[in-house]
Amino acid sequence: MNGKIPVAILGANGSVGQRFIQLLENHPWFEIKCLTGSDRTIGKPYTESCHWILPEHMPDAVKAMVIQENEAALKECRIAFSAMPADQAKDVEPALAAAGLAVVSNASAHRMDKDVPILLPEVNPEHTGLVEIQRKNHSRKGFIVTNPNCTSTGLTVSLKPILDAFGIEQLIAVSMQALSGAGYPGVPSMDIIDNVVPYIKGEEEKVETEPLKMLGKINGDHILNAEFAISAHTNRVAVTDGHTVCVSLKLRHDVKPADAIEAMRAYKCPEVSADLPSAPSPVIQIRDEADRPQPRLDRNTGKGMTTSVGRVRVDPVMGLKYIVFSHNTIRGAAGGAIYNAELLVKQKLIE
Amino acid sequence: MNGKIPVAILGANGSVGQRFIQLLENHPWFEIKCLTGSDRTIGKPYTESCHWILPEHMPDAVKAMVIQENEAALKECRIAFSAMPADQAKDVEPALAAAGLAVVSNASAHRMDKDVPILLPEVNPEHTGLVEIQRKNHSRKGFIVTNPNCTSTGLTVSLKPILDAFGIEQLIAVSMQALSGAGYPGVPSMDIIDNVVPYIKGEEEKVETEPLKMLGKINGDHILNAEFAISAHTNRVAVTDGHTVCVSLKLRHDVKPADAIEAMRAYKCPEVSADLPSAPSPVIQIRDEADRPQPRLDRNTGKGMTTSVGRVRVDPVMGLKYIVFSHNTIRGAAGGAIYNAELLVKQKLIE
Amino acid sequence: MNGKIPVAILGANGSVGQRFIQLLENHPWFEIKCLTGSDRTIGKPYTESCHWILPEHMPDAVKAMVIQENEAALKECRIAFSAMPADQAKDVEPALAAAGLAVVSNASAHRMDKDVPILLPEVNPEHTGLVEIQRKNHSRKGFIVTNPNCTSTGLTVSLKPILDAFGIEQLIAVSMQALSGAGYPGVPSMDIIDNVVPYIKGEEEKVETEPLKMLGKINGDHILNAEFAISAHTNRVAVTDGHTVCVSLKLRHDVKPADAIEAMRAYKCPEVSADLPSAPSPVIQIRDEADRPQPRLDRNTGKGMTTSVGRVRVDPVMGLKYIVFSHNTIRGAAGGAIYNAELLVKQKLIE
Amino acid sequence: MNGKIPVAILGANGSVGQRFIQLLENHPWFEIKCLTGSDRTIGKPYTESCHWILPEHMPDAVKAMVIQENEAALKECRIAFSAMPADQAKDVEPALAAAGLAVVSNASAHRMDKDVPILLPEVNPEHTGLVEIQRKNHSRKGFIVTNPNCTSTGLTVSLKPILDAFGIEQLIAVSMQALSGAGYPGVPSMDIIDNVVPYIKGEEEKVETEPLKMLGKINGDHILNAEFAISAHTNRVAVTDGHTVCVSLKLRHDVKPADAIEAMRAYKCPEVSADLPSAPSPVIQIRDEADRPQPRLDRNTGKGMTTSVGRVRVDPVMGLKYIVFSHNTIRGAAGGAIYNAELLVKQKLIE
Repeated sequence: MNGKIPVAILGANGSVGQRFIQLLENHPWFEIKCLTGSDRTIGKPYTESCHWILPEHMPDAVKAMVIQENEAALKECRIAFSAMPADQAKDVEPALAAAGLAVVSNASAHRMDKDVPILLPEVNPEHTGLVEIQRKNHSRKGFIVTNPNCTSTGLTVSLKPILDAFGIEQLIAVSMQALSGAGYPGVPSMDIIDNVVPYIKGEEEKVETEPLKMLGKINGDHILNAEFAISAHTNRVAVTDGHTVCVSLKLRHDVKPADAIEAMRAYKCPEVSADLPSAPSPVIQIRDEADRPQPRLDRNTGKGMTTSVGRVRVDPVMGLKYIVFSHNTIRGAAGGAIYNAELLVKQKLIE
Repeated sequence: MNGKIPVAILGANGSVGQRFIQLLENHPWFEIKCLTGSDRTIGKPYTESCHWILPEHMPDAVKAMVIQENEAALKECRIAFSAMPADQAKDVEPALAAAGLAVVSNASAHRMDKDVPILLPEVNPEHTGLVEIQRKNHSRKGFIVTNPNCTSTGLTVSLKPILDAFGIEQLIAVSMQALSGAGYPGVPSMDIIDNVVPYIKGEEEKVETEPLKMLGKINGDHILNAEFAISAHTNRVAVTDGHTVCVSLKLRHDVKPADAIEAMRAYKCPEVSADLPSAPSPVIQIRDEADRPQPRLDRNTGKGMTTSVGRVRVDPVMGLKYIVFSHNTIRGAAGGAIYNAELLVKQKLIE
Repeated sequence: MNGKIPVAILGANGSVGQRFIQLLENHPWFEIKCLTGSDRTIGKPYTESCHWILPEHMPDAVKAMVIQENEAALKECRIAFSAMPADQAKDVEPALAAAGLAVVSNASAHRMDKDVPILLPEVNPEHTGLVEIQRKNHSRKGFIVTNPNCTSTGLTVSLKPILDAFGIEQLIAVSMQALSGAGYPGVPSMDIIDNVVPYIKGEEEKVETEPLKMLGKINGDHILNAEFAISAHTNRVAVTDGHTVCVSLKLRHDVKPADAIEAMRAYKCPEVSADLPSAPSPVIQIRDEADRPQPRLDRNTGKGMTTSVGRVRVDPVMGLKYIVFSHNTIRGAAGGAIYNAELLVKQKLIE
Repeated sequence: MNGKIPVAILGANGSVGQRFIQLLENHPWFEIKCLTGSDRTIGKPYTESCHWILPEHMPDAVKAMVIQENEAALKECRIAFSAMPADQAKDVEPALAAAGLAVVSNASAHRMDKDVPILLPEVNPEHTGLVEIQRKNHSRKGFIVTNPNCTSTGLTVSLKPILDAFGIEQLIAVSMQALSGAGYPGVPSMDIIDNVVPYIKGEEEKVETEPLKMLGKINGDHILNAEFAISAHTNRVAVTDGHTVCVSLKLRHDVKPADAIEAMRAYKCPEVSADLPSAPSPVIQIRDEADRPQPRLDRNTGKGMTTSVGRVRVDPVMGLKYIVFSHNTIRGAAGGAIYNAELLVKQKLIE
């Protein structure tokens, strides 16, 4: 045994499941020991069950692994990375957590549970304080933590230094989102070639609520949400990976763009999160060019974990506006969940 | 002679010039008699000077026409449709107007001149009242009128009934704009395949000012601008034709989405503009589907002259939000200018 | 009653079904009286059963029509246009034909039946001679006729004048095919943005056989296929509509490109097919530009019924090469089937 | 001094120039000491002269380098990697070679010179034997070697084991080429969104000749070309990087697909080229899936240096057909040239 922590990937065949597997190849702390999938795929080796859609190759270590039922994760794993659809995650995740697994989930099903944190290690590592409360509330041997929806991710990272330095009163966020966010087969090609779809089911609700929880403060047994209003328009565009968000902000005080830039550029991870294997470097990359960030050019900054910000300027209505961009299946999904698990190990919540 | 008004196309080789030519084929009132272009193309037949990029065929009537200097428009034309770049339009348009032509321009050079109207016949046909003032101010035999920039066009049409019914205090507009708006060769393909460019030079300034002038009121010798603040984010996406804009609005009073929808659906052209050959029908098409309007499906509504609106809903920050879409080279450029010229004929400003 | 022939659309909800409905709006001879669809959609009005994906609007006449079982077509229709998947068409089409309907099918299920013609009215209208034989063979009151697969369509139209004038020995055809050919949802967007898929299931086999049957001659009770070898490579590219095919040809005699061009340019429909409502005009459009035909610019030539040919030149290996292009859901599917039905009416096989 | 060989990049601002710079970051043998560019950019630091379009970041080492005249390469460099346009390369490359530089060129200008090799180290490393002859012919202190055009590259690598094992009589190659091959700004976006352009100027001539020279044998002072006929159709598609080619082959003997696969799979670099820093591993990747290779998934195989082959099957006309794919700006341009320079160092033609 190499001393690595054995982990399971729940929903291993989907696009986020694939990204988990790709990012965990050669991970210094974690080793995949179990893959689970839908009934249709149980019993098949991964090379047969999975239609691999990533440009990176399928790691040799998983090729012969056989898809199992979700309960198989309990046998030898300590962490279950969940890439399940929300409707399945709803029941499966609590059951696995009750039986002792650390469920580190990308699914939306339990994000808004009062005692489940939505984690961004760069932003709110102290929210893992909910884990003990959650264990008591539900008599769980293990627990569930979540990462936010992919559009909320980069947005919230960019908001954190602004909120700390200047206070936020109102926010309008308009996204142009990548196709990989819809999974596979996901968006039909006839819907997106030479087109924009100005609607993504359930997405605006998430962007209007998740950042407030993440930017809130632990108060006894729950989070006191940050108190500002968010309005989101979410759109699908013909981009493979990486979500671009146009942000207009009303702050508590008048803030010059240069000061906002300085706050974001200077932002550092809390110490507990700074040296983890998946920690972004830098946390926020400020782009000085007039026309950046752009998905094709900036998606892989900081191995896909960095949040890119550009065009920080005066907003004639709200006060401040800018563009924020992050990789939706790396920082915004699998990579973010892995980073969360690393944080939990560092905090000795997973041992 | 068929009694049609002879017209010139200034800048006939470019993408907007081509659209003028395509839309004027078989126009009931206008007939192309003169094409102008850059020095490099003068003297060449149109089939040689022009790299035609429209799916509609090049009309037979222009194929053998020889590209002339701009001054040639003075010989036999009464209207000059200008598709020139702004830097050329700056001097050429006033010179032609002084010499007697009605210059109906798509260029931005003179839009903000105090005595030049920016016209949308559905919205502000009375702004042609500036024409007589302009003639006196500059001793012009002819005159210049303009149409707005392509993103301001659909946006302003959608705002008009809202402004009339409810008053507007603040507006955030985030666009996802088509490639044809950048002309030809325009945007390099490597910049837009699998990408978004969150910047269009000079565009945000236009969207933040032009609607206010169009929605203003004539007051003696000038326009009193509408008084509300606009903030624009303008983005380029991989779409051939049609600009999509996400709108968040703060109104003077609380307004239910259903009431805003009703105001837009009921909106009619002013009588003087309603029966013109290029009048849109309907002026505004309300889409009830959750995911419309979309460029590929809605760009040709009302022969490309209709403004499409969808997803009218509550904005948690501003009060009201929706999506507005219009065809950028038809309603937003050549088609709009032709509609303007029809209005001027109806008002007997062109005879 | 307006005297039009009542028709049914089998498989009305799919992408080809939609194209049938769009093209039959205001058809001078045919009127839609019945729509059929999958079990899941039976009983629903068309506006609810169908996710309409065409830029042209859904005709008012079908909006309230309720999706019925296939057998309902027998009640009042004389023609059933079939846009069914091949596996369903296999049994349904013979049953409806037996009961008296003229089944004009876009499905591949029966194309290779010995007594079922694959029809291109520009090419082989005399192949309807199989209809009587088919009726006898199977004791059918009605009959089945088919149109070819969409890639074979334009290819075969372009080959006909070449075959007649010069004889063909060998053919290599490499296609770049549009997404609409795969139906809806069809190709996932993640498979085609910034990509080519060099494989379309079952397609190469069709392109290697169907043209030979269409270019063959009736001989008693069957077709004597044309005798030359075809090799096809079929690829999917990021194009909405219109298939482009690179053709290399070995002819029986040395032929100059100019002579091949002349043969194609001069080609006319057989008299029986020339004046039908859907007849292409011209049958073949020769493009003289160095870089045409192109999907975006040429797909709507002749209302989508014309076959475009360009770059006819010497092939250093085979002798002659060129590009052929046609609209895959109009000439290559629904429009082609309607044209076939018009031919059958003209030939009094449908009355 | 780190002992690395100092090199210049001629035409450093263009898309291939950028790729040279990106691939040479941290190269074990070469170090960039000089960048050259057009008159307009001379004197500017690279960060200002260059519109960087690669997803990989601009290496720090070149950011402050000032663009110089081509002659500046003579001062301290031993190799000049040429990414110049062919018309400039025509005169500049011989001048620099005469003065002593090893000009390793991606330009087409001198590929067909009788004493200039077109090199693929996996295929014809012995063609560097022309270097001494070239030096004598032209009294050059240095010399010119070239790499083939990007479409010929992968094609020729795939042909080499086939030719060796079975002999080739005829070849039809139909390409679907990426946009980066046209440089920057290159192909206008309006020409390629929802489109295919079935023409690339000068490309078919190159694909029909360059492979024959590369697959030929040195015979005294020149190359005896391989003797088979090639016909090429070259097309542009909406792909950022990576050229896909459909190949139909007539061999000297009947060959089963399995035997052709085995020959390609077993193919190894000649010993002299096998261990160089840029040597592909494997040389040829055989894909077993029905629908591969694909640009998005396979372009980075072997760091972009591997040639991918799939769908090897019987061709009913020619005998054998398959798909070959390679990265056009890595293996097909800058990466290939760097590999050539490594070969020349290994062969002590550069010291």
